[in-house]
Amino acid sequence: MRAVRFDGQLKLERDIPRPEPADGDALIRVTLAGICNTDLEITRGYFDFKGTLGHEFVGRVLRCPSKPELVGQRVVGEINAWCGECPTCRRGDETHCPNRTTLGIFKRDGAMAEYVTLPAKLLYALPDSLPDEVAVFAEPLAAAVEITERLHVKPTDRVIVIGDGKLGLLIAQVLQLTGCDLTVIGRHDEKLGILWQLGIKVALPDDHPSEQADIVVEATGNPDGFDLARKLVKPRGKMVLKSTYAGELTLNMSMVVVDELALIGSRCGPFAPALRLLEQGLINVDSMVTATYPLSDALQAFEKARERGALKVLLTTDED
Amino acid sequence: MRAVRFDGQLKLERDIPRPEPADGDALIRVTLAGICNTDLEITRGYFDFKGTLGHEFVGRVLRCPSKPELVGQRVVGEINAWCGECPTCRRGDETHCPNRTTLGIFKRDGAMAEYVTLPAKLLYALPDSLPDEVAVFAEPLAAAVEITERLHVKPTDRVIVIGDGKLGLLIAQVLQLTGCDLTVIGRHDEKLGILWQLGIKVALPDDHPSEQADIVVEATGNPDGFDLARKLVKPRGKMVLKSTYAGELTLNMSMVVVDELALIGSRCGPFAPALRLLEQGLINVDSMVTATYPLSDALQAFEKARERGALKVLLTTDED
Repeated sequence: MRAVRFDGQLKLERDIPRPEPADGDALIRVTLAGICNTDLEITRGYFDFKGTLGHEFVGRVLRCPSKPELVGQRVVGEINAWCGECPTCRRGDETHCPNRTTLGIFKRDGAMAEYVTLPAKLLYALPDSLPDEVAVFAEPLAAAVEITERLHVKPTDRVIVIGDGKLGLLIAQVLQLTGCDLTVIGRHDEKLGILWQLGIKVALPDDHPSEQADIVVEATGNPDGFDLARKLVKPRGKMVLKSTYAGELTLNMSMVVVDELALIGSRCGPFAPALRLLEQGLINVDSMVTATYPLSDALQAFEKARERGALKVLLTTDED
Repeated sequence: MRAVRFDGQLKLERDIPRPEPADGDALIRVTLAGICNTDLEITRGYFDFKGTLGHEFVGRVLRCPSKPELVGQRVVGEINAWCGECPTCRRGDETHCPNRTTLGIFKRDGAMAEYVTLPAKLLYALPDSLPDEVAVFAEPLAAAVEITERLHVKPTDRVIVIGDGKLGLLIAQVLQLTGCDLTVIGRHDEKLGILWQLGIKVALPDDHPSEQADIVVEATGNPDGFDLARKLVKPRGKMVLKSTYAGELTLNMSMVVVDELALIGSRCGPFAPALRLLEQGLINVDSMVTATYPLSDALQAFEKARERGALKVLLTTDED
């Protein structure tokens, strides 16, 4: 089968063996996969991953001995394959399982291929009403929903999101649903325009409101957002950190103590509420698709995804 | 009057004018004052403060036109003199008031003197059953109580406190009351001995338990404790930061995101519950007093407080 792989270099390979489902796994025919910033970081060598890329996908289950009712269903899947046996899993923190593999990111081939295998327990069958092009946003939307899963965002809170990338746009839409007083700070006219059309207040980094916020979400994807976030959060406020990047950050931790700030790291989130929000039409993802390429043009698709101003670039296997 | 002052150098001055209470203030005859690590940091020039030191005290109210019922009462006092008018005060975050002065720390002469003035609204009358030598711990104990004020520490939580200084000992005792599985990591045999006698598990930094904790409190007072705290906290766990020090800290913020940690800064806390715990005999402070000096020997008292292994050193004006 064909697969988009990274081995120090990004390649479309054409004769990768079709994966064999292990015990408890499903074999899935991938129909659509999304390119995420993490994929771009992997291709820059920032993660120590070699193999098939891709952790955002929609597909149809072909084989699933452990859960035969899934066969024939359209599905999306969680990306952290946890063991279920260790103390971390048993206390409900499965996404932090120390034995986990992560789809297309860590020790597990991903979904930018014609076929992928994943434990059946990670799959969510999709209702017919949810098109592939919407459902493919389940994984990044779940990461946005993780914020309201971990934090009580109050309708009376003043909230600032820094970063108008794909994740920033999804986070902003999730937070908008709380009724909070929301502003997104970004650098890209077109992306801010999408938010503006959704009725969300926007600002440029050099022209943001001076009033501090109860909650500031740092979702720029790079270390530069931290200082602005720090400046914009109230004493006793919360900074939600969503950016992962190579390198370290130097900060005045005493000011975190004096101002009694809470810095809260947030990563992958729950799929079920993300799918509910998508199905109910409460999150607009149509405006977020920059382009769709056939899998055979994956290298061009990655080029497109790297362009300034690009949002979601999708790969489809439908050309076959 | 006599006062312990810092003007680049620590001095006992003998002819400082007795302070005059402003509107709303009480004039207090100080009977006992404690030396805190912050005082030692000020004398090292780490804060930009010049004036009379001291923010832990017990005294008797001599004059208080705005609240005459306080006259003659023994009192302790909060240290952040807030305005009560600004948005920060109005939302209940008075200790973060941007217009605040702080007793003996920021723009307000402190209590290592024969007399001190403080807004009457900051004073707490002491019950007769609470001796001066116990009540003088109200301020640091309030800072320890701030942890359980801001965080839900569950009886089933595994908690590690790093640091066996004065604040670490108070924090450990407050956390012990939750019923949690508590270990304190410290470097001083004598201080760990106090905890051990209180039935609290102790460990040395090089010989600590390997099991990670739900909550780790960093109370070493210096940047070195952070890395150990980071190592000892579970994914999705909470790190409570209590240390203020000069200088910055460099850390891998992406790991905070990936492990979904919460870093929570914590400073001054509520006096009323601290006084209740002291009055109910639930916190042992007797073992924490290293020495008591008359105010006229304040410079020796500071020397003593700087000694390795020293805990609380008190200054009394009772010699007069």
